[in-house]
Amino acid sequence: MAEPLSGVQLDHWRTFLESSWALHTRLEDELRATTGLSMNDYHVLVVLADAPGRRIRMGELANRLVLSPSRITYQITSMIKRGLVKKESCPDDGRGQEAVLTDEGLRTLREAAPAHLATVRESFIDHLDDEELAVIGRVFAKIRKG
Amino acid sequence: MAEPLSGVQLDHWRTFLESSWALHTRLEDELRATTGLSMNDYHVLVVLADAPGRRIRMGELANRLVLSPSRITYQITSMIKRGLVKKESCPDDGRGQEAVLTDEGLRTLREAAPAHLATVRESFIDHLDDEELAVIGRVFAKIRKG
Repeated sequence: MAEPLSGVQLDHWRTFLESSWALHTRLEDELRATTGLSMNDYHVLVVLADAPGRRIRMGELANRLVLSPSRITYQITSMIKRGLVKKESCPDDGRGQEAVLTDEGLRTLREAAPAHLATVRESFIDHLDDEELAVIGRVFAKIRKG
Repeated sequence: MAEPLSGVQLDHWRTFLESSWALHTRLEDELRATTGLSMNDYHVLVVLADAPGRRIRMGELANRLVLSPSRITYQITSMIKRGLVKKESCPDDGRGQEAVLTDEGLRTLREAAPAHLATVRESFIDHLDDEELAVIGRVFAKIRKG
């Protein structure tokens, strides 16, 4: 076992944990109240809208969203029912499955984005100067790589 | 509506969102696998263990955990069933209710903490130098205040 965390490390960790969780809850609540979308719904729409051909393999999408295979299946099934996404065979190999953004999904994202991003600005971006934001971007890119 | 986020702001935000969500999921999965506790369970135990008399009013606990009144009731009821927490009337006014840490709850926390904090170190703290950690502590304290 490595040495225990120092008091300072523990304090910063707890501040981060409580504050980032509160931020996530606030964003989720506001998004649901105004659009009916969850953060995962929204994030799937963003990732698909940015992807070439607006389509991504299910496995890659699961990695981006940090969802298990069973949870990504549940997530995409729910979005198919709402007409936001469809599932198609990969054009390359015909075996794998891809999630594809529908026109309705793209319209939903475009309608939801301005208010959601205004909340992101107000509850996150506006609290940070450029340097702090750059540190956060750099640090969390390192953390994501593991 | 305020001006839209810049490309750099949006990039850093998405990096933070994906990475912090992945971190939370990893911590939750490892904690559940090794101890059966959720992150909310663990956090309730930590907050109660630090509180004077190891007891906190339900409303204050809900604020700390960023849970709605109905969800904190569900959370505490589940922990009472497992013997980790009990509910008592406030000694001061007899009307409000307090959550109180049990001996079993304290023992559970002490058993869970070393492995959980080793994961926190490995997946978060060890990626940051002292200055980066201080920036994160400062920034997320500001964000929490709103």
